Amino acid sequence: MAKDTRDRLTAAALRLFRDVGYQATTMRRIADEAGLSLGNAYYYFSGKDELVHELYVSVQREHRDVALPRLVERAPLADNLRAALHAGLDVMTPYHGFGTTFVQQALPASSSASPFSAESGNARAMAVDLMEHVVATSKVRLPSGLRDRLPDLLWLLYLGVTLHWVVDPSPEQQRTRSLVDRLAPVVSKAVALSRLPVARGLVDDVVALTQPSSGALR
Amino acid sequence: MAKDTRDRLTAAALRLFRDVGYQATTMRRIADEAGLSLGNAYYYFSGKDELVHELYVSVQREHRDVALPRLVERAPLADNLRAALHAGLDVMTPYHGFGTTFVQQALPASSSASPFSAESGNARAMAVDLMEHVVATSKVRLPSGLRDRLPDLLWLLYLGVTLHWVVDPSPEQQRTRSLVDRLAPVVSKAVALSRLPVARGLVDDVVALTQPSSGALR
Repeated sequence: MAKDTRDRLTAAALRLFRDVGYQATTMRRIADEAGLSLGNAYYYFSGKDELVHELYVSVQREHRDVALPRLVERAPLADNLRAALHAGLDVMTPYHGFGTTFVQQALPASSSASPFSAESGNARAMAVDLMEHVVATSKVRLPSGLRDRLPDLLWLLYLGVTLHWVVDPSPEQQRTRSLVDRLAPVVSKAVALSRLPVARGLVDDVVALTQPSSGALR
Repeated sequence: MAKDTRDRLTAAALRLFRDVGYQATTMRRIADEAGLSLGNAYYYFSGKDELVHELYVSVQREHRDVALPRLVERAPLADNLRAALHAGLDVMTPYHGFGTTFVQQALPASSSASPFSAESGNARAMAVDLMEHVVATSKVRLPSGLRDRLPDLLWLLYLGVTLHWVVDPSPEQQRTRSLVDRLAPVVSKAVALSRLPVARGLVDDVVALTQPSSGALR
């Protein structure tokens, strides 16, 4: 089946990226590891960059599947945000050894694995949609200008947490776990303060900063 | 002179990293390009990672030299912060083609070029000190808890702007320039709001999040 073959190739690529490094892994070696011919491998993936992108998409999909059942209706935003961020770390844990290489490959804006690339549109939409669920499920009152943009802002926060996790040298990335525990209530508190009239100007500015049309960030 | 020789090696390394890429650049090639023997090159630098680190340090030094004269005594924080961030972009501009490779090399926490590494202590101290000057020069009133930590927070902001600049595909990185213009007043507004009693809890939390002793971020 096509999906099985794709999965075998991505699993083989991940093992090799982890064990021998990205540079030393060739498409031939990936094909061998997956028990496929080189031609067959190229039928599914144009090259290593596309395999890295596939891993990115599958992590987003798994993140969504793991996180959604953990969200609690009418729970505080801090609790649901914390649950969603920890779910992301849970899903990424097996990939930590490959994390640096992944970010290195995804860094150029021209890389299809970049979270800001056109090719990552689906993965990005899935991740932002998860944050939309976090907001919609939680008991939280928001100024109207912020409501629409909050899922995007939380997604940027999640990217920041991911970057912290990638470079986290602590055992089992405990520092990032601790960061998530402390970050979620701070975000929740900032969101609560955003409803005060005195904060309105600042909230509008932050929202404007991250508008897609403004050209910043993506 | 020792300093001249170091400068020749770093300049040669930068040219090669930019022209033929980091992977293809060997220490022998760097030595040849600088007109030195391989042994002489190794006398100054243990390898490519250390040369990348040297570039990082020299950029921080130049950033400081260019930014300090642009700070205006008693100017609003937004103006001085904007000046300091643009100065950083000015200094980094010749390196943009190498920016992705630089971040790729600096990404592992174990890399000496990482802004969080022990080896980068001096470069980090210089960069934080520049932000200290930005705060000290500006006309701004701060809650006491925030005063001590603000230079560190602004340095983290500068790292974020740098990351945005590295992946910025727009001509001459105009998006990042525009981001700086819009970001500086937002930061200044957030700092002004931090003095309100209602924001005190949030300010304390943000400060605690980024305390070095908390283990987060570094």
